[in-house]
Amino acid sequence: MRIVLDAMGSDTHPEPEIAAAMLAAAQWGDPILLVGPQDVLESRLRAAGAAEEQVRVIHAPEVLEMTDKPADAARGKARSSMAVGMELIKSGDADAFVTAGNTGGAMANALFRIGRIRGVKRPALTGIFPVRNGQAVLLDIGANADVRPEFLVQFALFGSLYAETVFGWPSPRVALLSNGEEAGKGNQLVKEAYPLLQAAGLNFIGNIEPKEFFAGKADVAVSDGFTGNVLLKTSEAVASFLINMIREQIKASPLTAVGGLLAKPAFKRVGALLDPSEYGAAPLLGIDGLVFVGHGRSDAHALVSAIRVARQAVAGGLLPAMRREIHKRLASGAPGDSE
Amino acid sequence: MRIVLDAMGSDTHPEPEIAAAMLAAAQWGDPILLVGPQDVLESRLRAAGAAEEQVRVIHAPEVLEMTDKPADAARGKARSSMAVGMELIKSGDADAFVTAGNTGGAMANALFRIGRIRGVKRPALTGIFPVRNGQAVLLDIGANADVRPEFLVQFALFGSLYAETVFGWPSPRVALLSNGEEAGKGNQLVKEAYPLLQAAGLNFIGNIEPKEFFAGKADVAVSDGFTGNVLLKTSEAVASFLINMIREQIKASPLTAVGGLLAKPAFKRVGALLDPSEYGAAPLLGIDGLVFVGHGRSDAHALVSAIRVARQAVAGGLLPAMRREIHKRLASGAPGDSE
Repeated sequence: MRIVLDAMGSDTHPEPEIAAAMLAAAQWGDPILLVGPQDVLESRLRAAGAAEEQVRVIHAPEVLEMTDKPADAARGKARSSMAVGMELIKSGDADAFVTAGNTGGAMANALFRIGRIRGVKRPALTGIFPVRNGQAVLLDIGANADVRPEFLVQFALFGSLYAETVFGWPSPRVALLSNGEEAGKGNQLVKEAYPLLQAAGLNFIGNIEPKEFFAGKADVAVSDGFTGNVLLKTSEAVASFLINMIREQIKASPLTAVGGLLAKPAFKRVGALLDPSEYGAAPLLGIDGLVFVGHGRSDAHALVSAIRVARQAVAGGLLPAMRREIHKRLASGAPGDSE
Repeated sequence: MRIVLDAMGSDTHPEPEIAAAMLAAAQWGDPILLVGPQDVLESRLRAAGAAEEQVRVIHAPEVLEMTDKPADAARGKARSSMAVGMELIKSGDADAFVTAGNTGGAMANALFRIGRIRGVKRPALTGIFPVRNGQAVLLDIGANADVRPEFLVQFALFGSLYAETVFGWPSPRVALLSNGEEAGKGNQLVKEAYPLLQAAGLNFIGNIEPKEFFAGKADVAVSDGFTGNVLLKTSEAVASFLINMIREQIKASPLTAVGGLLAKPAFKRVGALLDPSEYGAAPLLGIDGLVFVGHGRSDAHALVSAIRVARQAVAGGLLPAMRREIHKRLASGAPGDSE
């Protein structure tokens, strides 16, 4: 299996990427294709003691800057590590691309270099959330601030195929994120998407509120990218707000501080259960190639998790399944799937 | 000051309401007008030892059922405790109405019995959130799933006046909830509302993401009611998810369980800081009268907090300030304020 790793993605690149490439190659026995400036990467790999058959460097001299506009950079910087990595996917020379770089840049490069699966209206950034007793998929979490009802039907299909092929869940329960559970609740978009989802041939279980989503009542939830992004960022903000508050209150008296020390292993287990690095990376679904975007703060461990998820997607046949299902729906003229 | 309390609002009514009415009357020296079925309330008040001058019962024999459609019930059940309570506000016989009943029912009754302030496009359900180092106001949190940009300008005005008159914050910082902080980020609605807010004569500080909202970077944030509701419910869901997870992990081993016991006072302080009952109740802003909706799970303590907030709004002159400012903007033809 040929996994491409963007050497220049994470906030502290390329150290975490170099370590992750070596770890992943050792763990699965397949060489990693590491994309970035050749001289820098090769000298660091030598210094780290990497064997040549473990990590193959692909030269990409250009660097994406934070100030670059994603769409401009995708077109203009053909030799950035993202662009070069995506081209390897497009040409079929590799199976999946993993980056901890900017999400907007990854989406722009993926659209420009690889393009959409034929029949896909909009690709979706897809989040994997820790929920009660497991994980759940939410999409879109930020690629499309404004969507049409038929986009949500496609997102539901993407998420359902992802849950099936990558997680191995049969017939995933698909829900529509709303401000009330009853059919008929929601904004105009949700109300219009509801009957389309009912007719989409998926295991559609209706509307879902955030409470039920985090209770694990659905495997896949669909939303416009604006609301999905607010949900994602609210969950991160509230978790960190609450944890900081608990930390401060525990430190506030000697007795509770001792209690906090004794309870530390419990907090560590909670931290591990919520750790985004355990959930790998967010796939860009709808792109005609497998692209995974990890957190900018990813360390080597998180990047190895991202590579694991990418490998599962390749092994599970996610991309051919997506192509096949979208083609089938286009051919049958299923609701919301006309071109 | 004349505060009306809905005796039939909370999940376990009327006990919490009876206790709250007595407590509030004792605390502030003003009698509470308690609305509900006279015979039931009077016998319970006698049993509880309430003095006649403390709590005055206003008869309202009809009961709103969970299965009632809010709009139908508002029109049809003129003798429900909500309808009778609202009429007291409309007629000027009382200053503010407090209920722990259904939010949709309260909004429908408020619109039908009291109506909007002249010039108000849509009233907004307004949430008071615990944030870093204090509180912040978010509206709309559920009354209007679909809004127009000019509604958001009015919500910003409502929230700003609320923060000024009730909390006493001068020149509140007003922000637009978005999926990115930079101007130009957001969905179509946010992009269109942004310049209107810049021109609205408020202390508009731009877009805000959930992270900055919970960090206390704004005093007031505005949003459509769908997204605001998702933010509210996500924050509740994540807090309870996280707290349950910590509880389970602490119980998982004897050592951490001992630590948890010692740290208990810290958790209690966190619980108090986050306790919705400390934040009183959600005002329906834009209604031509003061109406506050508390949580259905309110106990007597929470209802007393709600009454405190209602009293602050009366004392701060929230309603006359709202009428005055909306009238001024209508007269001057400020952006987004044409009728």
